[in-house]
Amino acid sequence: MQIEIVAIGTELLLGLLTDTNSTHIAQQLSEIGVDCYFQTRVGDNVDRIKIALEIALSRNDAVICCGGLGPTSDDLTRNAIAELTGSELVFDQSIWARIESRFSAVGHKPAEINKVQAMVPKGTATIPQEAGTAPGLICPVGDKVIYAVPGVPAEMKEMLKSTILPDLVSRKKGGETLLFKTLRTWGLPESKVAEIISEHIEDLDRQAGQGSPSSAMLHSPAAKTEIPTIAFLASSTEGVRIRLGVKSENRERAVQLLAQEEEIIRSFLGDVIFAADEESMEEAVAKLLKQKKLTLATAESLTGGLVSARIVNVAGASEFFLGGLVSYATDIKKKFLGVASHVVSDTAVITMASEVRKLFGSDIGIATSGVAGPTSQENVEPGNVYIGIAADDKTEAYHFKLRGDRERIRQTGTMHALDILRRHLIK
Amino acid sequence: MQIEIVAIGTELLLGLLTDTNSTHIAQQLSEIGVDCYFQTRVGDNVDRIKIALEIALSRNDAVICCGGLGPTSDDLTRNAIAELTGSELVFDQSIWARIESRFSAVGHKPAEINKVQAMVPKGTATIPQEAGTAPGLICPVGDKVIYAVPGVPAEMKEMLKSTILPDLVSRKKGGETLLFKTLRTWGLPESKVAEIISEHIEDLDRQAGQGSPSSAMLHSPAAKTEIPTIAFLASSTEGVRIRLGVKSENRERAVQLLAQEEEIIRSFLGDVIFAADEESMEEAVAKLLKQKKLTLATAESLTGGLVSARIVNVAGASEFFLGGLVSYATDIKKKFLGVASHVVSDTAVITMASEVRKLFGSDIGIATSGVAGPTSQENVEPGNVYIGIAADDKTEAYHFKLRGDRERIRQTGTMHALDILRRHLIK
Repeated sequence: MQIEIVAIGTELLLGLLTDTNSTHIAQQLSEIGVDCYFQTRVGDNVDRIKIALEIALSRNDAVICCGGLGPTSDDLTRNAIAELTGSELVFDQSIWARIESRFSAVGHKPAEINKVQAMVPKGTATIPQEAGTAPGLICPVGDKVIYAVPGVPAEMKEMLKSTILPDLVSRKKGGETLLFKTLRTWGLPESKVAEIISEHIEDLDRQAGQGSPSSAMLHSPAAKTEIPTIAFLASSTEGVRIRLGVKSENRERAVQLLAQEEEIIRSFLGDVIFAADEESMEEAVAKLLKQKKLTLATAESLTGGLVSARIVNVAGASEFFLGGLVSYATDIKKKFLGVASHVVSDTAVITMASEVRKLFGSDIGIATSGVAGPTSQENVEPGNVYIGIAADDKTEAYHFKLRGDRERIRQTGTMHALDILRRHLIK
Repeated sequence: MQIEIVAIGTELLLGLLTDTNSTHIAQQLSEIGVDCYFQTRVGDNVDRIKIALEIALSRNDAVICCGGLGPTSDDLTRNAIAELTGSELVFDQSIWARIESRFSAVGHKPAEINKVQAMVPKGTATIPQEAGTAPGLICPVGDKVIYAVPGVPAEMKEMLKSTILPDLVSRKKGGETLLFKTLRTWGLPESKVAEIISEHIEDLDRQAGQGSPSSAMLHSPAAKTEIPTIAFLASSTEGVRIRLGVKSENRERAVQLLAQEEEIIRSFLGDVIFAADEESMEEAVAKLLKQKKLTLATAESLTGGLVSARIVNVAGASEFFLGGLVSYATDIKKKFLGVASHVVSDTAVITMASEVRKLFGSDIGIATSGVAGPTSQENVEPGNVYIGIAADDKTEAYHFKLRGDRERIRQTGTMHALDILRRHLIK
């Protein structure tokens, strides 16, 4: 089964917006073993949307188009599909009722222009709009199908998950299973991670019967063997992801092969791996805090609330997170945390962590300080970051030299703070 | 002049990588007034790259393809162009000399597989590789042209700037300037923003000599008139962006038309507009706090540090931001802020804002409370958000009913808090 993704929006063609929606859809398709050989982006223009859809339909079994379902005059996906399939647009009372109730729930009335969102090409099924006001569309074209979803990421993701992926799985006849597992690491550069498992990668290459470490083998989803594939994806603020992939005619076999491969990689990398797939660093930390029934408080200078904000975003954070102090001004550091001088130093973060622990009565205190730039502070250059941790009558401080702009130093510092917490908890 | 961007790489089709290269190229093309109506992404497969290039060439004056010029066996752009143009691949000694000197500069020798990077389709000009080992290609096809650049962002950007953009400008007949300005709004849904300026949009349509509010006119960068265009882009957590565009043969005239159009839109929307182009809500707030020489402290429950983290990300935040308290546990709210019961309410956020103001000695205190979900708290349902502000012996509380998941409620709540602060400062 073969699908093309068509992303619709003039913003994409003007470079005002990056097409992350296609990335998400592509990833989800590859996970259910559906092939995607082309992606197209086209602007808010009926004729050109039609051209893109025609070409996509001619070379695929189905098309997912994303965007252009809003209420304004540049939302033309409905019109293009109607013209392409030769069906008229009809007003759907049930969609309108849902739009009205959605607005009234927050004390508003829909505007007149929202009515266009209740228009659908005749003969089209709709995907209920859980989050927004535009329903998705499922339009049969002969034995093929066009799915249309809104460009708002949350709405697109919801409809893909609830309706389109299950629909595709049911249409798919037999076929290979393609499974991926992503292991997330923190603390080592990509080249170092690759070096640690380089012998194993060479082993896989030999098994695949190829002499050189061919990236065609490593990356092509069309590889016909059952040999696992490994790919790397590095991000300065989220660490290196290692993607393991297997393909097999037999689903159980694929599951088993993937589990084996994961075990091998884990044996090489140990606690450098902090989570798998979509699990975040803060979720990994939250799980450990809950398991050990420990409570936490934060004292943040450099990160200005980012550490606490990430922790709080884990559902159920109130079980273990008491609160935090953002001590940005020097006076505040002195008043609440007893740090009067050398605010960017080992001793400062140790004092901050100990004091916030006492102040909030938590089991663990964690503290951040540093210089995010662009200018130096107390003769300390941008990129110098200190993290302190206080727990069990012990305190420790860590020093990092980070690169990048203000935002990147702060985000990377936040990851280091959470990772130090994680490593303390698994000790 | 019309160009298509073709991004090459199986990673893109698997959703393992987001195509930010096309975003950059598109943006650069729009700045020199070159139209881009389609973008395509295709995997590392000679036949499919050929199909994508054929379609792109047939509907455009030129094609920029990006990726697939590396040394490994999945780098197939050279081969696809050679097959498409019916020319053979020849070894270019001067490229090889450059690759060798690049390696020897860091004490290495190129591998045998690097030789493929010195192969070019006969009749092709090359773009010198400043940063990497792969040269770019300029391949004439009749009176059209295919440019090929590596997928490594720094190398692609360098070649685009040094060679491709100047080449395009010289091929382009006449010179239109295309200018954009984005106005950012908060607090109204997209349909409401559009309704407020709907008469003006209809006016523009009439001026363009078209009866209906045709989006072909509104959005096509090819519109041959000097009538401004308007487009909307909504995001639940960042508000509605209004993009104004003008196109003119005369650059000064374009600048003037854009300024006029901005003034008109501002006259309709007033302080719903919080910033322009890439300026963020927190930057807008920071500017006002600096102007008025006022200091700020935050008390966050619902948002868990997001408000302070966003403020701190503005360079120079120490001028006006003293710090904040993340009062997540109920005991902490009581101990530091004197809120003992009904922690999710108007009175709670007013007390929090007043107390944090006293505690930190700031001019303004701002506080957030609410239920992010997934479960209710104190019989208050998820999505109920309260924001309190204390300043000048006055306090105010605001209540919102927000939709979405935990992350979205918290992000939207953060924007509301910052916007309340902004509105207080411009009063």
